[in-house]
Amino acid sequence: MNKVIFDTDPGVDDAMALLFLHRHPKIDLIGVTTVFGNASIELTTRNAQFLHREWGIAAPIAKGAGHAYDPARNGDHSAAVVHGEDGLGNIGVPLEIDLPLDPRDAATFIVETVKANPGEVTLVAVGRMTNLALALKADPEIAGLVKQVVVMGGAFDVNGNVTPAAEANIFGDPEAADIVFTAPWKVVLFGLDVTMQTLMSADFMAAMAKGGDKGLRLLSDLSQFYIDFYRQRVGLDGMAVHDSCACVYVVAPELFEYRSGPVRVVCGGIADGKTIQAPDSGRKYEGSAWDGQPSQLVAVGVQPQKVLELIRDTLVTTPSAG
Amino acid sequence: MNKVIFDTDPGVDDAMALLFLHRHPKIDLIGVTTVFGNASIELTTRNAQFLHREWGIAAPIAKGAGHAYDPARNGDHSAAVVHGEDGLGNIGVPLEIDLPLDPRDAATFIVETVKANPGEVTLVAVGRMTNLALALKADPEIAGLVKQVVVMGGAFDVNGNVTPAAEANIFGDPEAADIVFTAPWKVVLFGLDVTMQTLMSADFMAAMAKGGDKGLRLLSDLSQFYIDFYRQRVGLDGMAVHDSCACVYVVAPELFEYRSGPVRVVCGGIADGKTIQAPDSGRKYEGSAWDGQPSQLVAVGVQPQKVLELIRDTLVTTPSAG
Repeated sequence: MNKVIFDTDPGVDDAMALLFLHRHPKIDLIGVTTVFGNASIELTTRNAQFLHREWGIAAPIAKGAGHAYDPARNGDHSAAVVHGEDGLGNIGVPLEIDLPLDPRDAATFIVETVKANPGEVTLVAVGRMTNLALALKADPEIAGLVKQVVVMGGAFDVNGNVTPAAEANIFGDPEAADIVFTAPWKVVLFGLDVTMQTLMSADFMAAMAKGGDKGLRLLSDLSQFYIDFYRQRVGLDGMAVHDSCACVYVVAPELFEYRSGPVRVVCGGIADGKTIQAPDSGRKYEGSAWDGQPSQLVAVGVQPQKVLELIRDTLVTTPSAG
Repeated sequence: MNKVIFDTDPGVDDAMALLFLHRHPKIDLIGVTTVFGNASIELTTRNAQFLHREWGIAAPIAKGAGHAYDPARNGDHSAAVVHGEDGLGNIGVPLEIDLPLDPRDAATFIVETVKANPGEVTLVAVGRMTNLALALKADPEIAGLVKQVVVMGGAFDVNGNVTPAAEANIFGDPEAADIVFTAPWKVVLFGLDVTMQTLMSADFMAAMAKGGDKGLRLLSDLSQFYIDFYRQRVGLDGMAVHDSCACVYVVAPELFEYRSGPVRVVCGGIADGKTIQAPDSGRKYEGSAWDGQPSQLVAVGVQPQKVLELIRDTLVTTPSAG
């Protein structure tokens, strides 16, 4: 059984990923930590509470960072055009949800939960890396106690989605991401290189919802705004299931190909938030910022259809008609 | 006939490119400007003089910049490990060559030659972009008078060769490169994305030299050090003919595929010298440093065998045995 803490900023594709983690039989979701990003920390936390209530998720929710790691940054990049004003596709989520939060902040929750389960916890982080960087700062020892860190973020051999250089999760807190990727723990990164190849069409979603329960129909409802964004703004028939890629990895790593090597994040300048890997198998450099940093894995290939089918089969609790 | 000014820092692959420009029947080499890079400006200028004398090249040589555009930079990145201490494979080039230089500096030579041949001059720049940036600074009007600027430089969807981020020509003077790529003239870029696919094996070189004249045997001799570098340090059987790719484009653009869009250069930080293109056909960004910059062409595909054959057929003045 894979014990997972899900660090998230719901967010439409976050919602799908959360339902995947909740419903997959080989995943034990032991906590959800929220972070600002797709919307403010108040909204992403409220959205986590809403989704927990609607889907009957028992894992505790710990509220996390509301701004970037470096206080000099204005880290508030609204993604309302992608996820809706409320972060969940403008479906009319109640202003307040009567579901208690964990009394600890996200970083403290992560530190204490990891230390209580040494070597067992997978951190799946699909928003800004702020909470993870704060957890490392609070107790660097956790790096040796976490099983692995699975990240949705970055754009390696492809353009970004906020700027030509940077992907949104990393652009929103580059300093935190650089801390997380250079820490002495195992990081596996799912960037736009693979997530933009993993597109769920409106038809696929509709068929999946038809074969599923009420909870899945809620996911379909809140995804329509996001699907419209992809159709109208990106010119694609289908939504990139960014965050679910990271979750699928936890149970089906064989559906991706990887490249090993240190990863650094550009902080500042026109490429602010760009992720760059120095592949272990490539040319050797002398005196670069990648020297001596731990090798991490970057997903560079994906079998999109198999990923989508695994998501569907996990989310559909009764046999699907689609 | 294509009138070409060749801006170069010989350099082994520069030497091959120079011989290509000299011998191709559809190219009129009207000037050579030197720049620091593969070796100091004194050595690269001396090497240009040497190659002119050995190969009977009549085009004037104008000495160019010895340091980067921004005086705050220490732009002296020796490439002795690649090109030899003398920049020409340690073949024992005489210390001084008795061949007069043009009295003008490279930037002045470029400005005056372009203005004397409006709309006709192709600038083929295969070293740091310093001379071109200085020429633009001296007279911005030339941007509208140059036919096109063909550059060997950059690493777009692949790693660099000096750092994981940056290719040597751009790393050596990022500010100059950003000026050149954002100027209102047509730039076509041949970066590592294509040049590292265009490898000439030691056997190919040997067969070519065997079928050629004394001048071609000199090229083969001075290339051996460079071939050894690729074998021992990069792990490849063959030398990348970086600079010749840009020259081949002048007469055979159909041997490459291109992507259109503004190109910017990262200046400073861990990705110093990284080139990033925002493809015209891709996602639209709001408020990025690429907004409003002119679209340039980046070569993203190459037919290496055809490029190598065109180089061979051009360099071999008598029918080749190979």
